[in-house]
Amino acid sequence: MDLKDRINKHLNFPKRGVVFRDVGPLLRDPQAMSLALDEFQRHFHARGYDVLAGIESRGFLVAAALAVRCGKGMIMLRKAGKLPGKTRRASYDVEYGKDVMEVQVGAVKAGERVLICDDLLATGGTAKAAAKLVERLGGTVAGFAFMVELTNLGGADRVSQYKRLSLVRY
Amino acid sequence: MDLKDRINKHLNFPKRGVVFRDVGPLLRDPQAMSLALDEFQRHFHARGYDVLAGIESRGFLVAAALAVRCGKGMIMLRKAGKLPGKTRRASYDVEYGKDVMEVQVGAVKAGERVLICDDLLATGGTAKAAAKLVERLGGTVAGFAFMVELTNLGGADRVSQYKRLSLVRY
Repeated sequence: MDLKDRINKHLNFPKRGVVFRDVGPLLRDPQAMSLALDEFQRHFHARGYDVLAGIESRGFLVAAALAVRCGKGMIMLRKAGKLPGKTRRASYDVEYGKDVMEVQVGAVKAGERVLICDDLLATGGTAKAAAKLVERLGGTVAGFAFMVELTNLGGADRVSQYKRLSLVRY
Repeated sequence: MDLKDRINKHLNFPKRGVVFRDVGPLLRDPQAMSLALDEFQRHFHARGYDVLAGIESRGFLVAAALAVRCGKGMIMLRKAGKLPGKTRRASYDVEYGKDVMEVQVGAVKAGERVLICDDLLATGGTAKAAAKLVERLGGTVAGFAFMVELTNLGGADRVSQYKRLSLVRY
């Protein structure tokens, strides 16, 4: 099975000129998901990791799925204002201005190895902010798990110091 | 293990007068998550279900975790404007005005039994909209899986015609 067959392409979404890669069909197909999780597990097995982190909101899907598969816990990296209690924030560039990502203090313990999950790596802005938050809490980034990578947007350069697996590349 | 010990309470979040129930510690603890998934599986086993639906965004966590556990696929019920392709929409009341939930046409096939997942049942507005979308695509609602239910907000009344399991009630 080629996982590319489970990623749909939509032209001009969410706006003109953009090609949207939709992981919906992959999530819908348990055999394809199982294969995807196999690849993540195999790739990150040697390095080891203690906990999964999901970037809101499709990264939640990847992190939760992988957490159950490998019997580990997971934490949420959320948009600003969604998490209760003490938090740390990191801002990152979006098309017009800045966005803010947040994590709860104590979500990662010092020295823990965190595998950060998202559906897609594009410019790498959110990925970089996620790594910053994990490290600010004293954790180590064990790597990045992406279902899809858009190679022409240069995201890989922004997280080049970390181990990374993108299941499908365009 | 009492799952209640894995739900944190935050007073006055996101605003004064609200008690926020945080499933973060439950997600963080693989033993607790395993127990939660056991309960969902046992409860819905007899009724049967074909696919899981996750309500954005914490419902994604529940649906993805349960999908992997039981070897089924999952679909996304998203906020308006996030899903590419043809969609169906349902609006629901929020504190000030209305919000819109969306699903892709074809995400549910006619006759499929869909188990709808979210972290929390409050007033039942989003749950009701989710059921409406599933039924509009020709699916059957196999039930609702919630981690937490706030019993004093009357959500149960709005989805009383459906099977429902809430792991923890306040």
